[in-house]
Amino acid sequence: MIKPRTPPGVLELLPREQVAFQRMLDTIRRTFEAYGFLPVETPVFELSEVLLTKTGGETERQVYFVQSTGALEKVAGGDAGALPEMALRFDLTVPLARYVAEHEHDLAFPFRRYQMQRVYRGERAQRGRFREFYQCDIDVIGKDTLSPRFEAEVPAVINAVFEALGIGEFTIQLNHRKLLRGFFAGQGIGDEAQPLVLREIDKLDKRGEDAVRATLEGEGFGLAPEVAERLLAFSRIRSEGHDDALAKLAALGDGTPLFEEGRDELRALLGALKAMGVPESRYAINLSIARGLDYYTGMVYETTLTANPGIGSICSGGRYDDLAGHYTKSKLPGVGISIGLTRLFWQLREAGLVQAAESTVDALVALFDDTGLDDALALSQRLRAAGLNVETQLEARKLGKQFQYADRAGIRHVVVRGEDEVARGVATVKDLRGGEQFEVALDGLADSLLSRRGTIAHAATGEGAVSDGTSRPTSDGAAASSGPDSNGGTP
Amino acid sequence: MIKPRTPPGVLELLPREQVAFQRMLDTIRRTFEAYGFLPVETPVFELSEVLLTKTGGETERQVYFVQSTGALEKVAGGDAGALPEMALRFDLTVPLARYVAEHEHDLAFPFRRYQMQRVYRGERAQRGRFREFYQCDIDVIGKDTLSPRFEAEVPAVINAVFEALGIGEFTIQLNHRKLLRGFFAGQGIGDEAQPLVLREIDKLDKRGEDAVRATLEGEGFGLAPEVAERLLAFSRIRSEGHDDALAKLAALGDGTPLFEEGRDELRALLGALKAMGVPESRYAINLSIARGLDYYTGMVYETTLTANPGIGSICSGGRYDDLAGHYTKSKLPGVGISIGLTRLFWQLREAGLVQAAESTVDALVALFDDTGLDDALALSQRLRAAGLNVETQLEARKLGKQFQYADRAGIRHVVVRGEDEVARGVATVKDLRGGEQFEVALDGLADSLLSRRGTIAHAATGEGAVSDGTSRPTSDGAAASSGPDSNGGTP
Repeated sequence: MIKPRTPPGVLELLPREQVAFQRMLDTIRRTFEAYGFLPVETPVFELSEVLLTKTGGETERQVYFVQSTGALEKVAGGDAGALPEMALRFDLTVPLARYVAEHEHDLAFPFRRYQMQRVYRGERAQRGRFREFYQCDIDVIGKDTLSPRFEAEVPAVINAVFEALGIGEFTIQLNHRKLLRGFFAGQGIGDEAQPLVLREIDKLDKRGEDAVRATLEGEGFGLAPEVAERLLAFSRIRSEGHDDALAKLAALGDGTPLFEEGRDELRALLGALKAMGVPESRYAINLSIARGLDYYTGMVYETTLTANPGIGSICSGGRYDDLAGHYTKSKLPGVGISIGLTRLFWQLREAGLVQAAESTVDALVALFDDTGLDDALALSQRLRAAGLNVETQLEARKLGKQFQYADRAGIRHVVVRGEDEVARGVATVKDLRGGEQFEVALDGLADSLLSRRGTIAHAATGEGAVSDGTSRPTSDGAAASSGPDSNGGTP
Repeated sequence: MIKPRTPPGVLELLPREQVAFQRMLDTIRRTFEAYGFLPVETPVFELSEVLLTKTGGETERQVYFVQSTGALEKVAGGDAGALPEMALRFDLTVPLARYVAEHEHDLAFPFRRYQMQRVYRGERAQRGRFREFYQCDIDVIGKDTLSPRFEAEVPAVINAVFEALGIGEFTIQLNHRKLLRGFFAGQGIGDEAQPLVLREIDKLDKRGEDAVRATLEGEGFGLAPEVAERLLAFSRIRSEGHDDALAKLAALGDGTPLFEEGRDELRALLGALKAMGVPESRYAINLSIARGLDYYTGMVYETTLTANPGIGSICSGGRYDDLAGHYTKSKLPGVGISIGLTRLFWQLREAGLVQAAESTVDALVALFDDTGLDDALALSQRLRAAGLNVETQLEARKLGKQFQYADRAGIRHVVVRGEDEVARGVATVKDLRGGEQFEVALDGLADSLLSRRGTIAHAATGEGAVSDGTSRPTSDGAAASSGPDSNGGTP
């Protein structure tokens, strides 16, 4: 006998948690589609040669390799040292680059795609760290050029997604790489040093100002104390509301041409958000946002939950100028964001902000005795034809047992039709959530159940929500969760 | 520069093909939910020890193993011979067994689950054979017992799925293991020989009657010619219509108690299908259906497309008595079916029965010049709020170019608002599919576009459908496709 268990680092859900998770996926997909993004799915594995174009580093050490049994034998036979032929994707950005380069001539540009699939990273097993997790990404890819206006549209999508998810108020934090690098240049920091300084600024959250100041003034960088202070003062700038954002930008004073370009783009972005009706409480300038990667060249975004800042960034991304340089000579600039949904769901569950949903099943059609079977089957089909999700009780049991099963399974309604009801052409409906019981003519049954359906979702997140132990986490657990966004962002 | 390409044996779709594929997934999911099935997703990898409980054989040789870079180094360091810790799932049935055994105490039985995820098999690369493919499964799992009535409900689900998919008329072929084995026993074939005879009967399609007869009469089996002929005559029995199915069953004569049990269950199943209103043209008794696996113990199902029998079974499964004997002492009988959607989609595309869909984007809001940007952004948001999927033209270009882009991207409507239209509070809509152009008051624009939406799906499969080269297959291709259902069924 083998103990049934999942590998460490995965989040496997019980059915009613899966229903809640699926609703989030559906909501995100619907919103991405509303903004004109098209679906793409890629294989879970890529050729190692194609996937691992970057040189060494963290990413490569975390990669999962894949080989068939036949290939294993070959390796055992002596071909050691060779990398396995395939590897699991560790994000959706490298597969996107490969996809766009491969299908370049069949795509219409600017190419707007969304992709919602699982990715794989060989993380150290730790509570809240996942080796398999969903990413929900959008990107717009231009051919040769891509207007900064696409960067302005992205926060409107983020706003729409998290408004629709209804997991609490949030702020989209905005910064601009040109503004940052222009400012650095204005302080006499050269091109090569800028990414390194950026990386230090990105650590402010974790290390605190004093530690970062010490590093910037220390041997490695050797910045003058007044320069380090100006960098830190710059990184402290936050706006509250639309006009304040414009005022804070104006108060920065003059800068290099790159700095001015970044500021102009940020201003245009703020204007576009206003035109799109994004509430001004939902976006803010935050000049400490660095997204510690050399990859980004324009806008960078991070999104935080107002009531749960500890969760860290729940949606991150930015503008980049060269998506697929490893695969094609075409210049493919783009802008994109990523939501690490598995980690977000896990965190929301830990915080009590999501729980197991009601069942997707609207009603259980009960069965008294075997003579009623055909009637129960036919009634179930009639309700399904009207758009309801229905389970039929196929084995006659005591009614109490049937109610008990429906309750345990999270099914709200039980439809009962005994001899008496059949004779009178009616059905009795028991609402296990509200507790009431009512009789309805057979012709009106489907409509009656459909009209009650709308009230289910609400009940599932309200105080009356059922929590029957199905909310148990099933992933492995180790030490505490670490830094924000470790399972979240585009690289 | 690295050549961007996918590994062999995967089906990667262009965006509008992906839209068509996604619609099929959504339709299947909606139908599974209508019949009361709950969603489950499992990790793509399982512990090798857990996944590979069966002894050797075909399955094990086709397994993909997974290891992180760190584990690779360990293997290189000497621990050769040991299997990698994890492997990719090769079907959804073993993960279901593990899931039910692991979460047994948190589930309500009978447990009805659907699962739609990709599975992995190290198949020889061949045209029409996939190493990664979607399976869409349902199963009902009982605790200790499961009434045969659940086997009767399954064909109703199959009927509803393929009716909703609208890929042509189909027949659900029915047989019963008890009937088969009871008949074999009646012919003097012992318990041990029965699975072997079954395996030969299962080869009738591929080998033909003469070859199978020769094998049955040959050394291995040594059946008398009249016994072999009775087996073949039995396997030729097919019904047409409900009454004929009952008549054919009656005409079989008396049999062993097991035979009679199987016949009674088949009769009850036919009665239930009638009660559920499944059209009688959609199901038939076919006593050659064997599903060459020892696993099944009751009903077995295969489904074929009437106009495309060459595609083979598009949905298969059956009743089994012991789902998770490797993981738990609990007896968990069940019944389930599986649709191999990737292979089905590929075959339908090859046969010209599916093609790239219209874009999910309902309308492109055009942009004449930069002064109109805010208006275009605001109008797009207004249309989205009404439930439409909208892309905004963010860079002013010649209108002809914008039409050209929309046409290429499969977007049906372009909304144009020049100065004149703005002044008069109207918009001009160009329908790129029908070709017509009309003016509508801004207040009526969303409703007008929504009302035209319903006609899109139809146009996409009708004669007017666009086929702009996006229908290109992207999988690798080798020799011809082989036997039916190789990528399809539950084991």
